[in-house]
Amino acid sequence: MNTMELINKIHGLNTEAMDIIQKRLNNLTKPLGSLGTLEDIVKRLGGITGDEFPSVKNKTVIIMCADNGVTDEKVSSCPKSVTATVTENFTKGFTGINVFTRHVGADIKVIDIGVDADIDIDGVINKKIRKGTSNMAKGPAMTREEALKGLTIGIETVKELKDKGVNLLGTGEMGIGNTTTSSAIASVLTGSDVEKMVGIGSGLTKEAFKNKIEIVKRSIEINKPDKDDPIDVLRKVGGFDIAGLAGCFLGAAIYRLPIVIDGFISAAAALLAVKINPMVREFLIPSHGSAEPGSTWIMEELKLEPMLNLKMRLGEGTGAALAFQLIDMAVFSYVEMGTFQKAEIEPYKPLK
Amino acid sequence: MNTMELINKIHGLNTEAMDIIQKRLNNLTKPLGSLGTLEDIVKRLGGITGDEFPSVKNKTVIIMCADNGVTDEKVSSCPKSVTATVTENFTKGFTGINVFTRHVGADIKVIDIGVDADIDIDGVINKKIRKGTSNMAKGPAMTREEALKGLTIGIETVKELKDKGVNLLGTGEMGIGNTTTSSAIASVLTGSDVEKMVGIGSGLTKEAFKNKIEIVKRSIEINKPDKDDPIDVLRKVGGFDIAGLAGCFLGAAIYRLPIVIDGFISAAAALLAVKINPMVREFLIPSHGSAEPGSTWIMEELKLEPMLNLKMRLGEGTGAALAFQLIDMAVFSYVEMGTFQKAEIEPYKPLK
Repeated sequence: MNTMELINKIHGLNTEAMDIIQKRLNNLTKPLGSLGTLEDIVKRLGGITGDEFPSVKNKTVIIMCADNGVTDEKVSSCPKSVTATVTENFTKGFTGINVFTRHVGADIKVIDIGVDADIDIDGVINKKIRKGTSNMAKGPAMTREEALKGLTIGIETVKELKDKGVNLLGTGEMGIGNTTTSSAIASVLTGSDVEKMVGIGSGLTKEAFKNKIEIVKRSIEINKPDKDDPIDVLRKVGGFDIAGLAGCFLGAAIYRLPIVIDGFISAAAALLAVKINPMVREFLIPSHGSAEPGSTWIMEELKLEPMLNLKMRLGEGTGAALAFQLIDMAVFSYVEMGTFQKAEIEPYKPLK
Repeated sequence: MNTMELINKIHGLNTEAMDIIQKRLNNLTKPLGSLGTLEDIVKRLGGITGDEFPSVKNKTVIIMCADNGVTDEKVSSCPKSVTATVTENFTKGFTGINVFTRHVGADIKVIDIGVDADIDIDGVINKKIRKGTSNMAKGPAMTREEALKGLTIGIETVKELKDKGVNLLGTGEMGIGNTTTSSAIASVLTGSDVEKMVGIGSGLTKEAFKNKIEIVKRSIEINKPDKDDPIDVLRKVGGFDIAGLAGCFLGAAIYRLPIVIDGFISAAAALLAVKINPMVREFLIPSHGSAEPGSTWIMEELKLEPMLNLKMRLGEGTGAALAFQLIDMAVFSYVEMGTFQKAEIEPYKPLK
């Protein structure tokens, strides 16, 4: 099957498994529904996998790394070379996501999908589409073919992980300039003002912040992305990292794996995937509300509520790793808590 | 020293330790401040303990269990006997908080501070003040002496745990009727309408919900608690569980241990403690925003923002246990992440 055929075969949650899980949840020694979102998570996992006792033992955060031509417009306080350096550092064990995943017992999969440097290092998978996108402030960031290639890379990555027994995915990224591309995508897809979407990224002066807003506006004006054609939006004002991540979200829905959204960039990719096939939404688990303002608008558009409010803006998948802890707890409590029979008390009465 | 003398000797955070920690945080390979609240937590731990590398290895959730006379007014869907049953079940390993603390590697300390039953079972510490409070809808829930005794029990519990090497505390409770007492306390101390404070607790019919609001109103009208005298509020419309927890928050500030607020009842106790000595606020770490509406108002009054948004309303300290995971991650990332020197990149520029 080609990529679009795969995407079209996505189907919804297994409601039978969800009903069985709901019954068990209602029989645990607690007021009905009192574990809130943790109960919703277990049901969702069951709906995705069809298992009454879904496992989330094998977790991996996929990190898509790429450069963005729009950095020519001075939209970031970091030099572009940081993308390559940090991508390499992911293999050295001391970056944020290394430490976070080590703590929660998850793996990472680092993919060079378009870094502007030759990276030849164990632990970084070479899937380079091109050495960075073109400058979207002057024309489309990539071709339609390249955008589709990005989606395919994401989908194939998920398939490989699924085949290796991974049962929970997280999404991360590294790419200087990618809050700029995400702001453009978010603005077009939610139909909201650019000013509402743009944040300080890794840190900006007031002047540089104004410039970033102008660059996002100009990129949209010049490219006129078609709101109703998400792949057109992706190719014109997106990035290879976002294309790869959107592919991961699609892949998760195709191969039926739960996938956690990280922060702003990951959320922009998730929204693209949902616009490509709305069924993808059922496979998404939100993590934190990023300090980037556009994150809030995307989550609203996705009708998802972040579980964590920590004002983080590090990226790399760190928010997703934190959500792994909550998902672990959701499954653990579902499996381990006693039933009313065992506790020798009457079920708490349901809310009327 | 007597209880009030101990409370008066509470002093603020160690700013020297906090400055040292801030310096290290700024030198980790991430944009300045990009770990948000996780960075604030590490600084707070340092300010409380004076340690550059604070440990949170030994964690305990204190669970205060007590009955409330106001259950005579049918404010809960659960029979009062559930308090004793669940208190005993805490020793059996299958309640919510058993499972949550097992998952995060924390201990629990279960204290019978006023359950209306004779509980003689290993693992439940007998500190019973009385077999349940009086019905606050008809007069004060307890005497001023009893309220002070409750505070003292909490303070002493913290001292014992500190002496045993515990370095992170959580707060939990079990007591049918305690969302009713918490609503009364919250309404008086925040000066807000009773209607805004009352939720469904473990589940209520519409009619029973209306009754609960009426009972809270009546309790306040009959007792006329003095808003400016928190111990008067506690004794008139509080409970033994809440008195014990307020004592724990005071004890944490006295003996300089970080302490995590759980949900609505725990937050009401924290607010009482802060009204008794405002310095207590510096020792508090919030966890989740409870599904009980009054929780939001108390957190606002405390100027604290919940880190977790999971619509939980189980109590027992389950939200605090989830926050332990976040605190663990905060400390782990602070200790384990690389510095800019190690990463061979220039520090990201500060925000101007």
